[in-house]
Amino acid sequence: MQSMDDLFYALLQDVYSAEKELLKALPELARKTTNKTLRQAFADQRDETEEHVERLEKVFEAIRKTLRGKICEAVLSIIAEGRRVIDEVEDDAVRDAGILAAVQAAAHYQIARYGTLRAWAELLGEDEIVELLSGTLEEVKHADELLSWIAEGGVNASASERPQAAE
Amino acid sequence: MQSMDDLFYALLQDVYSAEKELLKALPELARKTTNKTLRQAFADQRDETEEHVERLEKVFEAIRKTLRGKICEAVLSIIAEGRRVIDEVEDDAVRDAGILAAVQAAAHYQIARYGTLRAWAELLGEDEIVELLSGTLEEVKHADELLSWIAEGGVNASASERPQAAE
Repeated sequence: MQSMDDLFYALLQDVYSAEKELLKALPELARKTTNKTLRQAFADQRDETEEHVERLEKVFEAIRKTLRGKICEAVLSIIAEGRRVIDEVEDDAVRDAGILAAVQAAAHYQIARYGTLRAWAELLGEDEIVELLSGTLEEVKHADELLSWIAEGGVNASASERPQAAE
Repeated sequence: MQSMDDLFYALLQDVYSAEKELLKALPELARKTTNKTLRQAFADQRDETEEHVERLEKVFEAIRKTLRGKICEAVLSIIAEGRRVIDEVEDDAVRDAGILAAVQAAAHYQIARYGTLRAWAELLGEDEIVELLSGTLEEVKHADELLSWIAEGGVNASASERPQAAE
């Protein structure tokens, strides 16, 4: 790694690995969630994650680089925490809270990484890539807000009071 | 783990481990940073981290639990990324950008975790603990904002302006 391009490529692979792991884990975590609002949030997040993966594949095409088998240890360990909660916790509400916490930690990891990638893409003058990354960054920020709202008790509020995604 | 108290205690240990690792890593990362603004930000963050550790120790006292040897894998892997950048990257500005990115990912991990801990402490009716956690949450959010500002204004800009010499 010697240039900003190298840094960008390395982080892109890390984030791609994180998204692929989340794509596998979210349906599993959703199945073990008893709260309907939370289960729906995970289902929506899973669909968005599929779009994030597609956008990242467009970014790889744009920079003319191929994917390598990098592993995102941080997100792997966060997902492992969610699985441990599923295995260990018997009470439904406590298990839901534990799963939510893990998914929110993963969301924050994405916010940090997409924020960095976008800043670097701006710096490198890659306007098309900036736009792709911005779309995902807004989605993960919204997913985090929704999870905070559910965690703080918003589960009992009406759907119309949910945080709305930016248009 | 069967109750919210158990979840809270488990996450508290995770965050305590993360803070202790950051306390060790920040001076090392600061020493390898050439940008003065960034180096000062890391030094300030190191001092704040010391306060975070003290606050967490007060929380452990408040819930009458002792520390165990839990390890925060997510933050360990993020710090390892910072160390890898130090070892591999020769260009000062590129190295600064890579170190900044790692520290910002750690800051976001803390934002997620302290947000969850605070929400759980509120739920458990632990007002004194909510106040301790809120103080740290505000500090890590501010640290993140400061790092974004530096990333968008200084460190990264100088890296891209440098000619990219072939190695």
